[in-house]
Amino acid sequence: MQDAQIINSRDLEFQLFEVLEVEALTRRPRYADHSRETFTAALDTAHAVAIEKFAPHNRLSDEHEPQFDGQRVTMPAEVKEALDAMRATGFLAAGKDYELGGMQLPSVISFACLSLFKSANMATSSYAMLTTANANVIERFGSAAQKRKYLQALFEGRAFGTMALTEPQAGSSLSDLVTSATPNEDGTYSIRGNKIFISGGDHELSENIVHLVLARIPGGPPGVKGISLFTVPKFQVNEDGSLGARNDVALAGLIHKMGWRGTTSTMLSFGEHGACIGELLGDPHHGLAYMFHMMNEARIGVGLGAVMLGYRGYLASLDYARERPQGRHPDNKNPLDPQVPLIEHADVRRMLLAQKAYVEGAYALCLYAASLVDEQNTGVSDTARAEAGLLLDLLTPVVKSWPSQWCLEANSLAIQIHGGYGYTREYPVEQFYRDNRLNMIHEGTHGIQAIDLLGRKVTMKQGAALKLLAREIQHTIDAARAHVSLHAHADALGDTWRDLSATVEALLSTLAEDSERALANANAFLEAFGHVVMAWTWLRQAIVASAALPQAHSEADADFYRGKLHACQWFFRWELPRVALMFATLRSLDDTTLRMAPRWF
Amino acid sequence: MQDAQIINSRDLEFQLFEVLEVEALTRRPRYADHSRETFTAALDTAHAVAIEKFAPHNRLSDEHEPQFDGQRVTMPAEVKEALDAMRATGFLAAGKDYELGGMQLPSVISFACLSLFKSANMATSSYAMLTTANANVIERFGSAAQKRKYLQALFEGRAFGTMALTEPQAGSSLSDLVTSATPNEDGTYSIRGNKIFISGGDHELSENIVHLVLARIPGGPPGVKGISLFTVPKFQVNEDGSLGARNDVALAGLIHKMGWRGTTSTMLSFGEHGACIGELLGDPHHGLAYMFHMMNEARIGVGLGAVMLGYRGYLASLDYARERPQGRHPDNKNPLDPQVPLIEHADVRRMLLAQKAYVEGAYALCLYAASLVDEQNTGVSDTARAEAGLLLDLLTPVVKSWPSQWCLEANSLAIQIHGGYGYTREYPVEQFYRDNRLNMIHEGTHGIQAIDLLGRKVTMKQGAALKLLAREIQHTIDAARAHVSLHAHADALGDTWRDLSATVEALLSTLAEDSERALANANAFLEAFGHVVMAWTWLRQAIVASAALPQAHSEADADFYRGKLHACQWFFRWELPRVALMFATLRSLDDTTLRMAPRWF
Repeated sequence: MQDAQIINSRDLEFQLFEVLEVEALTRRPRYADHSRETFTAALDTAHAVAIEKFAPHNRLSDEHEPQFDGQRVTMPAEVKEALDAMRATGFLAAGKDYELGGMQLPSVISFACLSLFKSANMATSSYAMLTTANANVIERFGSAAQKRKYLQALFEGRAFGTMALTEPQAGSSLSDLVTSATPNEDGTYSIRGNKIFISGGDHELSENIVHLVLARIPGGPPGVKGISLFTVPKFQVNEDGSLGARNDVALAGLIHKMGWRGTTSTMLSFGEHGACIGELLGDPHHGLAYMFHMMNEARIGVGLGAVMLGYRGYLASLDYARERPQGRHPDNKNPLDPQVPLIEHADVRRMLLAQKAYVEGAYALCLYAASLVDEQNTGVSDTARAEAGLLLDLLTPVVKSWPSQWCLEANSLAIQIHGGYGYTREYPVEQFYRDNRLNMIHEGTHGIQAIDLLGRKVTMKQGAALKLLAREIQHTIDAARAHVSLHAHADALGDTWRDLSATVEALLSTLAEDSERALANANAFLEAFGHVVMAWTWLRQAIVASAALPQAHSEADADFYRGKLHACQWFFRWELPRVALMFATLRSLDDTTLRMAPRWF
Repeated sequence: MQDAQIINSRDLEFQLFEVLEVEALTRRPRYADHSRETFTAALDTAHAVAIEKFAPHNRLSDEHEPQFDGQRVTMPAEVKEALDAMRATGFLAAGKDYELGGMQLPSVISFACLSLFKSANMATSSYAMLTTANANVIERFGSAAQKRKYLQALFEGRAFGTMALTEPQAGSSLSDLVTSATPNEDGTYSIRGNKIFISGGDHELSENIVHLVLARIPGGPPGVKGISLFTVPKFQVNEDGSLGARNDVALAGLIHKMGWRGTTSTMLSFGEHGACIGELLGDPHHGLAYMFHMMNEARIGVGLGAVMLGYRGYLASLDYARERPQGRHPDNKNPLDPQVPLIEHADVRRMLLAQKAYVEGAYALCLYAASLVDEQNTGVSDTARAEAGLLLDLLTPVVKSWPSQWCLEANSLAIQIHGGYGYTREYPVEQFYRDNRLNMIHEGTHGIQAIDLLGRKVTMKQGAALKLLAREIQHTIDAARAHVSLHAHADALGDTWRDLSATVEALLSTLAEDSERALANANAFLEAFGHVVMAWTWLRQAIVASAALPQAHSEADADFYRGKLHACQWFFRWELPRVALMFATLRSLDDTTLRMAPRWF
């Protein structure tokens, strides 16, 4: 049953009900029908479906990736069965209004449910995640006709969705995309162009596929200001909702990835025969803004996916380290004594503790980000809603990139604990490692997140978001002072924040005069900033654990809180101190990389 | 031709002839027939064979891993063709005496030649590397009869070799292996037991396979002191060298790995039918010592393999970054301007520079280690030979582990530069990343290297090896003072060495009283120590480059030296400073991991 452990349920409970206190959300009108019990029931259902329908074929989908015979895309039947179960239990529309067939769950609960599907099977759950993201764009920006045509089908999983942004020649540079959308007399557009890396771009998991396609209307402005968004269905949809003619969207080929193999990654060709019909979504030339509106949630989704792959590996290696006898303590040279479990070795414990700090910390961060979405949507005041939105904007690059980097590192540690076995496909951890490597790339690479953070988010609205974060961190530091054992951490976080502020000041004063130099080491800024955010996230968990420990219900509960406090300490002892050096190097405006002439390589 | 770039030949020339000054070796009697020309001819031949025979099937072997139908192991024919070409050109015995059919090349040249085969195709070249390592043990410790039976066949590649150490229940804990060797009346032994992860354990690439098997003679001492070494051929060898009966060594199954798929990894069953005959090699109960005698070279081989995978990825991503247009400089928002090549972006240049620092630095380190093997074997005095042996012993854990960690990181950066393409099997870099992940595990995990370094190598002979390294580093610091641009680096290296020395002192004073605590953070010590060694390695390269730059033969040559100087600076600016924090934490004897109780996870 090595595949069965998809979460530490005690940790999930801790995050939601003790750290984020999600029960308080039920006092808001939108969630008035909900209670701790309904939240738990949703989580339990998601957990059961994930274990029964998603986890069992995780390796199968990796070994039998989708095949394209020139006509049809086929994949193991278990993928569709799992998604059908997700449909049937309502998780495609978990957060949506009751009248749309949704459960009207808060985002933080929806994301927590989604996390269980992701943990059980990243590739299969991706079809659902893409569909939700797609539906959210149409719900928010689509016309009444578009909503009527597509929304119900997407929420019910009769249609699945894609995001068709990237083109072969443009990659991260959306400014350079060339797919065209030529107006027809009936108000529709003829789409023509090629897209690449479109996840879920073709399959037979649903009756229809709705592509959201970025394209240019001829005559529009160059660059990102001339990009519009279109709905392009695989099958046209008639007024009564029935499916009409096949649209001219062709699968040009499947892409074969290192991991995440169960999700089709496609090259799509639009309008090769001149007959691809799309409908404009929203206003012309605003396509990118619409897409970016969804990016916060999509990027939380990526971060959360990275977390869950890390989490799976952590649990698998913890299990292995407890079961596998191997060697003896360094001070025992007697070969006649029995071997001790791996977990008895300090270095193995280090690798477990590091994983715990990375994955539980990143999980806390992602769920916090999801709670900001709720705050943004249903916060009790205009100010609360606006502030939550600002904070979320600022934190999004970290939520996307920190787990992608450190939970991948966690996966590497999980392999290492397994030794030679971990490197084989007979154990699950190598797949998590392969799957997770994608997360630093898609939905905006690490480098793009770094420039987004330093070049845009830190400065937006005169640094208002950064000030908000400073305030929140100060609250945490103040709260930590009530706990003697956390004083040193509170001081360290305070010192580091001042260091961060001074660094931001130095970089921003250069940004105006020499943006290339100021942004040259943005990657280091993202990494250091991320570590500060993570230290804060751990301190918040530690405060709750420290307060709860004296009145723990059981020894197991007390051990759980001690583990939280210890993981926090590990992070403050072994990880946070690294940022001082990064900030110092950043403040020096080191230009080593900038000055490396291409011909010197 | 994306697969064709297996090395920067200018760098190889620099390492061998400028940094290591290998031409001086030709003044030694053993290499008197050699010259720069013969060295270069050997390298050129290796390069040509590697390109023509090894590189083309690197992906093929990954996609079509060896199959076992219960009787035979099959794999693509190209593997055997490549190894046949290696045989034919004499590279299986490159360093061996002329009378054994060898080329009598220095180790540093043999390793340099081997590096080209590794770069071109890690999996295929592994069969050769294992065979050489196996033959070296028999040559050194075998009886005359064993040498007669096996040696020539191994050098000529009619037989291939394995190292059969690991058992399913024992993993890294060799002390716990249970395979038995019961004496027969004729002086042979009946072997019975199971081995796992035996690379090259079965195949049809050679007429015979000679397994070197660790096993226990009943009645011997427990633990590692009761382990003996045996030659166990797949087919018995008659006195005239012809093959006799099939021995009772059975392939119990192939292991399916994440990468490195072209090399069979096997579970072997010895004596299942009571008829597996082996011969004792050397004295009883000394098996581990014989094996460890070969470990230095085997571990250089692992380090070098890690380097070459990193090197391939670096060259591929450098090529890609130069060719691929993508986006514009941060200060140019005009979408009508053409896109610039990826290499124009600071963050891409950072990823290239980091890769260059990792892979060229690690390459220099491995070749230096190989030159120590030469010094150990043919040094001009007893002292020189003894000192080289000591230094090599000390550096071996670093040579094995540093490239395994940092050239894997280089592979990750190579993927990142390729963006989404890098994550696909249509590009070569994802395979390098998968292949390279093994190197932190096999031939002694990272954790074992760390304990070897701190618990054994640093203290051996009253710290004599460490003192030698201090002397060598001081020589380099003194030499660097002749170059104004290197003063700051020289100071930094001196400061860091003092920091390291103080840390060693603190740890060693604890080692006697509480070995568990002193060794608890050995992993951090290995990493910090490795970075100091790498800074030294880079400074030695920088000294040569700085001296050569003013009289460079061409602008391209000058650019090459500038690149070396700049990569050195990057390492001193961005990597070396990290160790101060590690040393400080180590000196604090932090016990966070030790105190984490298993039940708190």
